[in-house]
Order: sequence, then structure tokens, then C-alpha cells
Amino acid sequence: MNRKFGVIDLGSNTARLVVYEVDAQGLVTEVDNVKRGLRLSNHLRDGRMDDEGVRKTLHAMRQYKELLDARSISDVIAVATAAVRQAENGDELIRRIQQETGITVRILSGDDEARYGNLAVLSSMNVGDGITIDIGGGSTEITYFQNRQLQKSVSFPFGIVTLTRMFFHSEIPDETGQSALRHFLSRSFSSCPWLINKQCPVIAIGGTARNLAKIHQRSVQYSMDSFHHYPMSAGQVASILDHVSQLPLEERRQVPGISKDRADVIVAGIAVFDSLLKHAGSEELFISSKGLRDGILYEHVWGADAPADIREVRERSIQQFMNRYQVDKPHSYQVKNHALSLFDQLLAHGLHKYGPPERGILEAASLLHDVGRMINVHESAEHTFYLLSHVLLAGYTHRERLLIAMIASFKSNKLLQCQLTQHADIVPKAGKNVVEKLGHLLIVARMLDRSLSQAIHTTRLVEEAGQWVIECQGVLDGLLEYSMLDEPLAKLSKAWKLPITFRPVTDTDKT
Amino acid sequence: MNRKFGVIDLGSNTARLVVYEVDAQGLVTEVDNVKRGLRLSNHLRDGRMDDEGVRKTLHAMRQYKELLDARSISDVIAVATAAVRQAENGDELIRRIQQETGITVRILSGDDEARYGNLAVLSSMNVGDGITIDIGGGSTEITYFQNRQLQKSVSFPFGIVTLTRMFFHSEIPDETGQSALRHFLSRSFSSCPWLINKQCPVIAIGGTARNLAKIHQRSVQYSMDSFHHYPMSAGQVASILDHVSQLPLEERRQVPGISKDRADVIVAGIAVFDSLLKHAGSEELFISSKGLRDGILYEHVWGADAPADIREVRERSIQQFMNRYQVDKPHSYQVKNHALSLFDQLLAHGLHKYGPPERGILEAASLLHDVGRMINVHESAEHTFYLLSHVLLAGYTHRERLLIAMIASFKSNKLLQCQLTQHADIVPKAGKNVVEKLGHLLIVARMLDRSLSQAIHTTRLVEEAGQWVIECQGVLDGLLEYSMLDEPLAKLSKAWKLPITFRPVTDTDKT
Repeated sequence: MNRKFGVIDLGSNTARLVVYEVDAQGLVTEVDNVKRGLRLSNHLRDGRMDDEGVRKTLHAMRQYKELLDARSISDVIAVATAAVRQAENGDELIRRIQQETGITVRILSGDDEARYGNLAVLSSMNVGDGITIDIGGGSTEITYFQNRQLQKSVSFPFGIVTLTRMFFHSEIPDETGQSALRHFLSRSFSSCPWLINKQCPVIAIGGTARNLAKIHQRSVQYSMDSFHHYPMSAGQVASILDHVSQLPLEERRQVPGISKDRADVIVAGIAVFDSLLKHAGSEELFISSKGLRDGILYEHVWGADAPADIREVRERSIQQFMNRYQVDKPHSYQVKNHALSLFDQLLAHGLHKYGPPERGILEAASLLHDVGRMINVHESAEHTFYLLSHVLLAGYTHRERLLIAMIASFKSNKLLQCQLTQHADIVPKAGKNVVEKLGHLLIVARMLDRSLSQAIHTTRLVEEAGQWVIECQGVLDGLLEYSMLDEPLAKLSKAWKLPITFRPVTDTDKT
Repeated sequence: MNRKFGVIDLGSNTARLVVYEVDAQGLVTEVDNVKRGLRLSNHLRDGRMDDEGVRKTLHAMRQYKELLDARSISDVIAVATAAVRQAENGDELIRRIQQETGITVRILSGDDEARYGNLAVLSSMNVGDGITIDIGGGSTEITYFQNRQLQKSVSFPFGIVTLTRMFFHSEIPDETGQSALRHFLSRSFSSCPWLINKQCPVIAIGGTARNLAKIHQRSVQYSMDSFHHYPMSAGQVASILDHVSQLPLEERRQVPGISKDRADVIVAGIAVFDSLLKHAGSEELFISSKGLRDGILYEHVWGADAPADIREVRERSIQQFMNRYQVDKPHSYQVKNHALSLFDQLLAHGLHKYGPPERGILEAASLLHDVGRMINVHESAEHTFYLLSHVLLAGYTHRERLLIAMIASFKSNKLLQCQLTQHADIVPKAGKNVVEKLGHLLIVARMLDRSLSQAIHTTRLVEEAGQWVIECQGVLDGLLEYSMLDEPLAKLSKAWKLPITFRPVTDTDKT
């Protein structure tokens, strides 16, 4: 029986309810996502949340409660961040929510917020050292981690809504306001000496970060629909800041990709990223679409510790993908074993020079080569490519995700050429050769288990009179596999410029 | 527990095993599909299948048996067509298959073949009167149906392999051979007076038909990846025939889209379609990717009678789609009810002039609007469009499928504009207005059940002082729905150029 639970995040800008479903294998699927833009930061008056803010909050919480009741979900994790934390009457609000809905809302400390953001990033990205920054409506959390271990964290009591109110009083942020904001941020960051000149990547979390990515992606006509792990240079961030801060609000709303209900506050948000990059001496910003709520979710499902190793992140996300798209696991693992074994044997014989990165890509592609069948058995390669290039596979960069997608769905040079043309901005032409070679290798590995029955259990690559022969150790003579190996091996030979054939060896032959 | 069964089709050109899975709701999914090109027609010598043909057949059948055993599938329907039927020693071959594999193969009569092809077409296409033609390797079946009722059928003892052997002796089919083939076909068709000058569409079944479609789609850079229900004019068929019959085999193999292992026999196949179109005075050919095997499958699952009405075909295929992609049915039906009710009320007030075709499209789009969530809740509109434009929805034309996809996934004019640009060859620009209007209507209908709990059960459209008001009858005050209706209604008003607002009416108000 699948378990459902809700996560409510009463943020300073938005109140959101996300419903997750966890199946018996630990697969977590987001099944619903409702948000209300409450802008609670704007309802803080002299340190208290005003009546309108209280009323709107209670109204949203009652609606969420009804929604959860309608789906018989009683397991709810509810948290509140800066706006409620900063309000003198925050505790009172929490009590009223408890009375009216039965939902217990936990007020997160700034440290909690920082830790959850950090957990979300370390659980979903391939990063070693870095700085995370999560800008909310009324607070900003920053962490520094080294070797995937949280070192320092800080929570500043300002966010995009409050900074906008503090510094920008006209439609176009005036130079005085901008300069004042820069000084303010610089002073704030200076209070954390551990931030200065770290020269490591900055990972930006939250709606402003995603919107920044979207604006940039639109401007360069980026070929992939994905924000997570999207890389931007410090220069690109500065140039977008420069552009949007010179536009009056109405024109700013028209900037391609900008979120209409964020256009009024986004300048302050981008200014924070820009200042932090300068302060930390960082050249590179990555977007994380995983944040606070995901950190809470990960803690709930997998515990409070981030995966110590990127391999763990990747294994988990491959497992999630396999479960989600109902992959035939014994077959996929067998294909992976055949593919990696051939890869390793070819390497041992000095027949290629690929290393662990390519091996890792091949491994992921082998395990996921069949995901498209869940959409349809017809044209399943195209569906595999669609899924792997459109659905987040956490722990991999965009380039890695596309390489995995291309190898997993490899069928012909024609299809590959289309994919490469479509994504020329992410996978350079030079990638064609490795995709083709590993793609053909994967097709042979798939054919080695074409009957999905693991009848061929091992392969041995041997050289015989200038020819390479794959000895296939199988349980029976005349396996379906043997009728279907000639064609893919001929193509493999051509792509690798190596004559490779095969020979069946039946288990009983050896006894 | 899902039931699996295999269908083996021992054809004159190809031997194929398809594994299907049927779930408790009657959803049929193809889970595997293996083929071996045996070309049995070529192994008929003086009316007997030669030893090599027998050996290859037995070998393939043993492999299929192993494959079925490996998956514990004992339910197998196996049929053989022309090559085995025409072989004097066909019964002996069937006995040997039975002995060696335990599988009972039924030799289909020409009439059986014709009937199954007809059943497949009537179960998957919107056609009233028409002629079906299924060209195999060694026989050709033709049927004529009126008002979706099979009227006549015939099976000719020639197919692409045998016709090629009879008439084409050189690499380039010479004019003498082509002319002799035309005369031969004309004489053959003349034996069926019920074919002459029927002026109804011809529906072409089988690999040659699909390949013909592929060649044509490549030549016009068709924007959709789908053969089923692909329309071609008689002139287009004639012109492709003209083109491919003038090329030597090696050049023919290079024609974009042509299937390499069919290039040698395809000229004869297209010539048969061309002759039939001329003979029947038909202007239009539709491709059916459903054929013999599907007819057998449909009979096995739903019985031997074709759906009497196209609505039944469509209902079945929508149900299959909903089951397959795990749609929340109570929600989808509620959305459909709201959407159609608003459509009907707007019509009753004279606010639009759309008729049953648009209503049918809206109905399908409403039921299927959420299919993309099965891929991912993020960007689910894009996934919905992908699924509906890439996975066959039987019973609809390509244009209808795209309209359903566009309305179901409608989110913004920007996304729609991309879809229209991509498919300008299928949906003309004039379609934009209806998609936009029905798209906004569907978004309102979805919002009317945003909580997925059917809390708003009916709507009533009333005019009040030049304004239109949707009275929403709901079970409670303050439903989530009411907080979210303003924006979609404002957009609906703009698209329809009608001021439309809403008013909640709670059930208890009326008591």
C-alpha cells in the first residue's frame, strides 16, 4: 500500500502544500502541488503579523486541511519560515492553526532552513565544495560545505520582499537604492568571514534562482527544459542584473521568461546572488531546483544525513527512475553487467581509452535504456530519450544527462544526429564518437539478454587470428539471442573499427 | 493479477511473437515484440515447403517457446498464413511444431485473414464505408465494408514476395514486367465485381503499407511520428511507385524511409495498392498500422464483432489511455462534466457555434488532460502533449489527435504557438482560435475541481446586467477552488471576449 503525506511550507512569499506518495520500494513521487501567494513579509507591521496576514494564513491552512482530508492524508509535516519566525505573534498564529485545523506547524530557525537547503543540494547535485544560498521572501540562508560536509551556515533576516521594500522605492530601481543595497549586502556578508574569497561554486536555491535561470535560458534559447544543475557564470548573472534593473516594472514584466508575480522583487534577488558571487570570489553559479521542502522530504524519507558520496546520490536517483518507469530490473542489471564487462575487457585489451566518467555514463544508460517502454513499446527509443532528457535525473549535469539519454536511446546515426543537432549547445559535436561507440556496445549488451531471461550469463572477449570473438556462456544451445547478434555485432565492428564476432558456449559444453 | 499471453504469427515474410499483458480493467499492453524474417514464401518449391524452410520455422518456434517459458506464459495463440496454407506439407509442419514445442498453430484460411484485418481496421479507425487490403508475403486479402459491416472478402494467393518473383527478374523492374504485373492485378481484381468503382477510401494494412507511409512522410517532412490513419492521395501513391520503380536495388535502398529488408519487394507491393485504387476508383488511401495480429488480439479480448459505432472505438481507446497512464478517473470525469456543461450552456445562450465535432474533441481532451502527470508532475502539460501526440489514440485522425493534445495541454498562447508552428502541416493556423477558446474553458473546468475532491458538483451560467456569472454549487464555503478561479476566468473572459465571473453557492444555502 502506498503511503501519502503532505508537506506544508508557510513561506514569507508563498504558502505551498505538496503531496508526496511513497511506495513499498521507497520511491517518492510528488503527486500534487498547490501554492498561494500570501506575501506574508508584507504583513509584518512593527514586528507583528497584521490581521489580514493572519486571516489569509488561516484561510490557506483551512483549504489545505480540506484538501488533505479529501484525500485521507493525515501525515503532514508543516513548517513556517521567516515571516512567522520574525512575527512577535507567530506562536499565537501557530496555536490558532493548530486549533482550527489540527495541523502542528513547526517554526524553523534560520539554521534549520539553512541545513535543509544544504541537505537538498548535497542530496541532488554533484558538488564537493560550495556555497548554497536560498533567498526567500523575508530571509536568506547561506551555507558553506567542504567535501560534501556542512561547515558553516548563517541566516540573514532579509529576503527579496523586504530588500525591495527597504531599497527600491520607485518603479526603476534608482542608482542610489542599488548602491545602498550593494553596501548593505557587502556589510552583511562581511559578518561571515568564512564566505570571503572561497572561489568555489555558488549554488542558488529557490524561486528567484529558478527564475534567473529561466530568463537566461530564454535569452540563449537553451535546448533543455531543466533548471536543476543549470550552470551560469558570474558575468552572466551580472549582465542579467544590469539588464533588468534598468527597466521600469511594466517593461520588466515583458522580459522573456520572467515570472509575472516576481517581476517586482526580482532585481533585489539577483543583486543578492551577484553580491555573493563577488564576495566569495566565485566564477560559477549553479541553480538548484531542490530546496527547503526537498530537504524536509529527504530527511523524512532517508534521514538527516546527506549522502556521503555522489555515487550514492546517483544510485538513488537511478533507482527512483527505474521504479518510477517500471523497468524490468533483472534484465536491466544483466544488460548493465554485459555492457560494463565488455567495456572493461575492451579496455584491458587496450582497445579504448575511456575512463571512469564514460563508464559511469554507460552504467546509467544501461540501467535506464528501457524506461521508454513504459510509455509505449513502439518507438520506445524515442520515448527513452524524451524521458531522460525531460525528467530530472539528480546527481548528473545537463551534459551528462543528455549523454546518458543519447546512449540509452541509441538506435541509429540518423536519430543521434537529430539529437545532437537539437542539443548542440550542450553536447559538442566531439561527443558524437563516444555516444556512437558506447551506443553500439549497449545494443550488443541488450541483445545478449534479448529474451529477458538472463540465459547468457557471462562473456569473454578473446583474440583469435586478428579477430575478436565474444564467447557467450549460456544455459542452452540455440538461444534466441544467438539468432539476433550478427547484425548488432556487425554494426559494433564498424563503429569500433574492430572485427568482432561471437561464439556460443553452452554450459554443458564445459562439463 | 495481470494476465499475459502470446500471439505468434507465422507469416509468409516474417515470423513474429508478440507478448501482451491484460490487467484487471481490460487494459491491453504490448510488452514484447520479436520478429524473425524467414521469408517462407521463398521456400515453397513445387507446392511444398523445402527442408530449409521447415528447419528455420522449427528453430524460430523453439526460440519463441523458450522465450514464453522464461516468462511463464502458457497462453499462446499461434496462427500461420499463406506460406503454410499453400504448402502441401503444411499440416505436417504444424504437427512437428506441436510435437517439438507443444504449441498448436492454427492455419488461417484466406477468409479468416481477411476478416481479422477488417476487424482490426473497424476497431481502430473512424471509417464508415471502405476497402481494406492486407498484402503479405504470399497472399493478399481484400474486404469491402459498408456502414462498418463487413460485406465481401477475398484472398488472392499472391503477395509481395511471390509477385516480385513472378514479374521482376532484373534489378530495375523492367517495363514489360511492370506492365504484365498491372495486367495480372487487373485481371485478378476483375474477378471481384464488388470492388469496381466503389469510390470509397482504401485502407492499407501491413508492413508494405507502413513503409509506404514512412517514405511519403520523409519526403514531405511530416511533423508527426505516426502511421495509423495516415492519409495519402491516389496521386501520391502513384508518384512514389513511379519513383521507386525506376531505381536499381542499391539506389532504392537509399530512398529515405525505405525499409532495407523490404526494398527488393516493395515495388510489387506499392503496385498492388496503386492498381486497387484505380480499380476501385478511390482517391484516398489510409494506412492502418493495426492488422491481422491486432484482429486476433481484439477477438481474444473483446470478441469477434467490431464496435458498431465509432464512439465505441473512441471510448475504448480513451479508457485504455486513462488506464495506461493512471489517470485519476473521478477527477477526470468531473472535469469532463464541468467542461461539457459549460460548453453546452454557452451554446444554449448562443455564445458560440461549435458543434458535435468540437464537443467530442473537448470531451477527449478533458478526460486525458492529466495523462502527463504519470511522467512527472513538473511540466506535466508538456508531457501530456508529448504523450497525446506520440502515442496512438485509436479512432481519431492525426488532426483530431493533435487538437486533443493541444487543448488537453493548453497552458499559454506561447506554448500553443510552438505546437502550432511544429505541426503547421497538420493543424492549419485557423485551428488556433478553437484550441485557445476550448483550452481556456478546460482550464476553468480543471480549476473547478482543483482539490480533486468533486466538491463543486454543478455549475449554472446566468446573465446578470451584461455580465456572465458561473454559479458554482459546492459542498462547503471557502473551497480551495474559489481562491483559484479568478485568474483562469479572467483569461477565459479575454479569450472569449465575454465578461465571465463566478459565485459560490453552498449546498446549505439552498436548504
